[in-house]
Amino acid sequence: MSSRIGNILSVSIFGESHSDAIGCVIEGLPAGLPVDTEELQRFLDRRAPGRSATATARREPDAPQFLSGLFEGHTTGAPFAALIPNTNTRSQDYDALRRIPRPGHADLPARLRYGNWHDVRGGGHFSGRLTAPLCIAGGIALQALASLGIEIAAHIANLGPTGIADEPLDAMAPDRAQLAALAAHDFPCISTDAAVRMQDAILAAKRDKDSVGGIIECAAYGFPAGVGDPMFDGLENRIARIAFGIPAVKGVDFGAGFAAAYLTGSQNNDPYRMVDGTPRPVSNNAGGILGGISTGLPLIWQMAVKPTPSIGREQPSVDIDAETDTELIVRGRHDPCIVPRAVPVAEAVCALALMDALLEDGRFPAPAPRRA
Amino acid sequence: MSSRIGNILSVSIFGESHSDAIGCVIEGLPAGLPVDTEELQRFLDRRAPGRSATATARREPDAPQFLSGLFEGHTTGAPFAALIPNTNTRSQDYDALRRIPRPGHADLPARLRYGNWHDVRGGGHFSGRLTAPLCIAGGIALQALASLGIEIAAHIANLGPTGIADEPLDAMAPDRAQLAALAAHDFPCISTDAAVRMQDAILAAKRDKDSVGGIIECAAYGFPAGVGDPMFDGLENRIARIAFGIPAVKGVDFGAGFAAAYLTGSQNNDPYRMVDGTPRPVSNNAGGILGGISTGLPLIWQMAVKPTPSIGREQPSVDIDAETDTELIVRGRHDPCIVPRAVPVAEAVCALALMDALLEDGRFPAPAPRRA
Amino acid sequence: MSSRIGNILSVSIFGESHSDAIGCVIEGLPAGLPVDTEELQRFLDRRAPGRSATATARREPDAPQFLSGLFEGHTTGAPFAALIPNTNTRSQDYDALRRIPRPGHADLPARLRYGNWHDVRGGGHFSGRLTAPLCIAGGIALQALASLGIEIAAHIANLGPTGIADEPLDAMAPDRAQLAALAAHDFPCISTDAAVRMQDAILAAKRDKDSVGGIIECAAYGFPAGVGDPMFDGLENRIARIAFGIPAVKGVDFGAGFAAAYLTGSQNNDPYRMVDGTPRPVSNNAGGILGGISTGLPLIWQMAVKPTPSIGREQPSVDIDAETDTELIVRGRHDPCIVPRAVPVAEAVCALALMDALLEDGRFPAPAPRRA
Amino acid sequence: MSSRIGNILSVSIFGESHSDAIGCVIEGLPAGLPVDTEELQRFLDRRAPGRSATATARREPDAPQFLSGLFEGHTTGAPFAALIPNTNTRSQDYDALRRIPRPGHADLPARLRYGNWHDVRGGGHFSGRLTAPLCIAGGIALQALASLGIEIAAHIANLGPTGIADEPLDAMAPDRAQLAALAAHDFPCISTDAAVRMQDAILAAKRDKDSVGGIIECAAYGFPAGVGDPMFDGLENRIARIAFGIPAVKGVDFGAGFAAAYLTGSQNNDPYRMVDGTPRPVSNNAGGILGGISTGLPLIWQMAVKPTPSIGREQPSVDIDAETDTELIVRGRHDPCIVPRAVPVAEAVCALALMDALLEDGRFPAPAPRRA
Repeated sequence: MSSRIGNILSVSIFGESHSDAIGCVIEGLPAGLPVDTEELQRFLDRRAPGRSATATARREPDAPQFLSGLFEGHTTGAPFAALIPNTNTRSQDYDALRRIPRPGHADLPARLRYGNWHDVRGGGHFSGRLTAPLCIAGGIALQALASLGIEIAAHIANLGPTGIADEPLDAMAPDRAQLAALAAHDFPCISTDAAVRMQDAILAAKRDKDSVGGIIECAAYGFPAGVGDPMFDGLENRIARIAFGIPAVKGVDFGAGFAAAYLTGSQNNDPYRMVDGTPRPVSNNAGGILGGISTGLPLIWQMAVKPTPSIGREQPSVDIDAETDTELIVRGRHDPCIVPRAVPVAEAVCALALMDALLEDGRFPAPAPRRA
Repeated sequence: MSSRIGNILSVSIFGESHSDAIGCVIEGLPAGLPVDTEELQRFLDRRAPGRSATATARREPDAPQFLSGLFEGHTTGAPFAALIPNTNTRSQDYDALRRIPRPGHADLPARLRYGNWHDVRGGGHFSGRLTAPLCIAGGIALQALASLGIEIAAHIANLGPTGIADEPLDAMAPDRAQLAALAAHDFPCISTDAAVRMQDAILAAKRDKDSVGGIIECAAYGFPAGVGDPMFDGLENRIARIAFGIPAVKGVDFGAGFAAAYLTGSQNNDPYRMVDGTPRPVSNNAGGILGGISTGLPLIWQMAVKPTPSIGREQPSVDIDAETDTELIVRGRHDPCIVPRAVPVAEAVCALALMDALLEDGRFPAPAPRRA
Repeated sequence: MSSRIGNILSVSIFGESHSDAIGCVIEGLPAGLPVDTEELQRFLDRRAPGRSATATARREPDAPQFLSGLFEGHTTGAPFAALIPNTNTRSQDYDALRRIPRPGHADLPARLRYGNWHDVRGGGHFSGRLTAPLCIAGGIALQALASLGIEIAAHIANLGPTGIADEPLDAMAPDRAQLAALAAHDFPCISTDAAVRMQDAILAAKRDKDSVGGIIECAAYGFPAGVGDPMFDGLENRIARIAFGIPAVKGVDFGAGFAAAYLTGSQNNDPYRMVDGTPRPVSNNAGGILGGISTGLPLIWQMAVKPTPSIGREQPSVDIDAETDTELIVRGRHDPCIVPRAVPVAEAVCALALMDALLEDGRFPAPAPRRA
Repeated sequence: MSSRIGNILSVSIFGESHSDAIGCVIEGLPAGLPVDTEELQRFLDRRAPGRSATATARREPDAPQFLSGLFEGHTTGAPFAALIPNTNTRSQDYDALRRIPRPGHADLPARLRYGNWHDVRGGGHFSGRLTAPLCIAGGIALQALASLGIEIAAHIANLGPTGIADEPLDAMAPDRAQLAALAAHDFPCISTDAAVRMQDAILAAKRDKDSVGGIIECAAYGFPAGVGDPMFDGLENRIARIAFGIPAVKGVDFGAGFAAAYLTGSQNNDPYRMVDGTPRPVSNNAGGILGGISTGLPLIWQMAVKPTPSIGREQPSVDIDAETDTELIVRGRHDPCIVPRAVPVAEAVCALALMDALLEDGRFPAPAPRRA
């Protein structure tokens, strides 16, 4: 069940880039959870294409239709289902798509995997468009977590070949100024200067018919200590399993992450001290997670996003059916950088992993019963 | 089910550092698979403690007892179960262990998670010792994959604060000289020089009552193209979910990984060419995986291992019951660096993920029936 | 994930009786499977209401919309999703529904389970209407199995308080005359006489503002020997787990079933003989299943369907909010007997269980690759 | 994962009749649950062979060794593992076993399923002996449920070809006299007279080199209302999936069960009345379950156990390798009736299903934290 995540909060994603619709089915949402569909729409809009010069010119509203599980603004306890119609699908020469795989895309392995029955149009089920239903589910989880005082924020920590860095998110406690700046900016950076430089780099890549990647950092503030599970359902495993489901993600790390490999134990260990009557780590190289379980400090993780494989330049490829080499120019409108649009997806990933762990550990409080 | 992995090849890990035994139950092994228990023992010995000056002085044989699922040297199709008795457990002052959590270990979050019922001795179920049964399962998977011509090798790519680097594994094809050197060395490096320098760094850390971490690189050669699944059961998701189950792993990436974020699309995309009548990428920034599915090139991934949290130095901690700050000196024999012992564990992780994907995709050939 | 079944062929059901739509998402369908949507529609029509005097007068077309996973008449390998809009929903006094639970329905336990947030209209997610998406999935599985020569048929074995019995399905081999009669009849009986008498009994119950139940027998012919799994994923467990998901099913048995308890071992054991060079049981008390695995004889199972709980008579109930006893007359149009409409659902259940077992055991042949 | 059950309380069963050991691994037990191993042993003794003239003469103690997850008499939160060594295994002529399948056993389908690699000795993983580890897990669940006031009892409702019936368990409330009588009797009947007649029937079958089956009824008293899940994880589905994992079970029904098919709706519906301020059904044809969820009345279910297939009479079979018909006399010591020994297994099945549902629905209270 490769398009499903979660142990208790189970999300199934369906759809293909050019099928009639994409969508999700969510099982395990407690009954009685309020869902603010307008707030959800605003969250989805952050991911949607066509919003700025740095993104693809395709414009699809990503307006979900709610099919079940929601009644009078609250979850019913039954499976929640929603879909987004695919309105902006254009007729294409499928055979050419099937014959000449785009470098960096799943076209070639998908053809081998599915005996060439794969719907290759727009990448099919491998399209980045499938992160939209992931964000429907994640947006609901974000609202549910917010009601418990858990706040999740992500930004572009680093972008492009020259390594344009944003200010890091505070790893010890939520920094209101940071979070306010991040919320105020259209481009998901804390620092206005970094935002400007990153956008310039993206536009330069666009002009160059090329693309750039980057690193997204995500923090969860207010997550309670003692939640998570050992070995394979630790918070790290849960987040990583979902994050690698985002097309273009090639690396995930937590806290000091890969940099921890270059520290000594005495540097990397986060010492404990009593803080307000509670034992707390006084630094956060662990990213708020030890043994897969939360320490009470903010959860901090990063994901590496490769440069968009669809670029306007001619690229060496092959004609599989003719069994010859050929050159390929990918047509259509493409993001020169998907990192900005992947930022809300990182928040969705984080919210889904954390809400599932809270539910599984019995730490998500049951909503109040509906009054008669 | 946080101590279980796999969709078809399902491995359950049980045991605690100081319980009577640790072990595993494997479901989904096809019937009729030969298991060479001597070769398995040699593989387990690579992970076992006490083998060298750079590892802990504890010496436990890690000799598995096979309980079921194996008959006359072949799997029977029934669940395979094995255990390793815990022989080297020493009586300890449990209350002190419960009161004063070790920085960098799971002691504190586990206490919160399990209402203080957690068996804190030696880290309980969070102990690195639990990688031994993971290696039993992984060792069997390695043998099964080898019979299909799939070869998995890992080494220490980088170690210690100064960044001592080994030669990288060939990302385009198996390099026989590299693999022979790696197999010949006691210390898991390709380059003898790197091995010497890494061991010096570990011994220096030991003298300093400190510890060091590192980066392990793992390659799978000969894995067929077109195996894996979209979204959340891609090869990356499968490997990452298991790898983050190894204590001390804080990051996982694939191919160019985090470095891909600093490339342009035209640099990062692996172009295709016809090679021997087959379309093949001619570079391998993707680490052999696109859309979660194998491309036919070697699978390449890395994991970041933090420095061992158990160090001989005094560290700031707390007495949870007394609600006061205190200082802690972790007693006992500890590895100044667990990276060398984690190398076979990386191979086990990779083998389990890949065999599960082959089985799920119907690409693992059924063993021949037993002759009457 | 209570609304999901299957290990490899995974079906998620969503929707509520009065939500915007009901539907299903199917993962695990091999790519390249032909789907005949007209044949599927005919199968769905067998379950749909409003077809005869013995069923409810509500008339809903149950015409599925295919959202994804299907392209040019074949499965693509991506999740298959379909929905059926709920067109015939009428506004109702929800509060009365919430206050006064219908005896024999899930209203009361659902209210306790979901803190009263449950969408009580028409039974919500507990409605028999949810068997429609189960039949979409089952109808596709029936087509896939038919392509392998596996034929599934069900009929009403027994109906009503007087025990009107149909001729049993042949348990040793498909009887063409039986299957032709069954296919020719609108009412799912082999014997015309039994069909007439059963319909009379249903109409009598209707006139009496009452309802009747019955027993459905289902057979799978042509299923290969040696498929299934021990203990908890045996063919019996798989079928039973799904069958008990049909509202009103209160019992499931296999072969001689409950009657086997009254046989001696020498009567109940099915002896073996060589038949056409193959060892075969020469009787079929086992219902074609031993140890959860198929024996090569037809699979035979029964399910007991209770009388429809919605009856026109006044029934004792309670007003939960007023905390008083009250009398309830269930309004609306209801089936005096759902057994005829449950017959195709039994076939769907059987097909889904068997196709999942074939896929999991590697016995479902991969469809041919799409020609370039 | 055919040898595993449970969503939250996950039990993996391993072992074969003649492997070194059989056992189980339980994940999902809350930390801090007291386990009384002496009480557990008494429960296991009820299932163990060799206790009476009506059972097999084989005598194996079924004394579990606890490997992990239990410390100082309480669960630790880590996976619980236990094994029972197989001490009473006798060397046998395996080839004859492989060649000549026993009618009514899994020998033939297992041979086809596992390419003849199956460990055929004693039935391998298909042996009734595998219910011993199921009872270890079930026994722990029974203790945990008892601490919440939930009491589970089973008895032989009916036995043998002449249909010797015991008094039914009270379906509306626990009857202390019944439960005391049941507990006091060695043979699991309420009525002493029925017990004597059933034992006579078993001994008669034994003398006749034959075997008899029967029907086991199981009740759970004190289970709270509003627990369970719709569709496929209802209490019925959960119990049925596990119960069909017991070798020889061929049917499962709930409440009126198969007999409900012969009632009218007005007879079968359980009317509601306010009882002590709570809405309650005033009859229990539903067996305490509507829509998969508990109604607050006792849960009542039955399972049909076929007569033991191993009988001393000569039976027609085949020599698979020689491809000829042959006659088989099953050697060894066998139960002429396994129904009495299956009674505690039914209780184990019920306890595991109910505890899993309580845990999944957040209705199992967390044990108190361990005091410092």
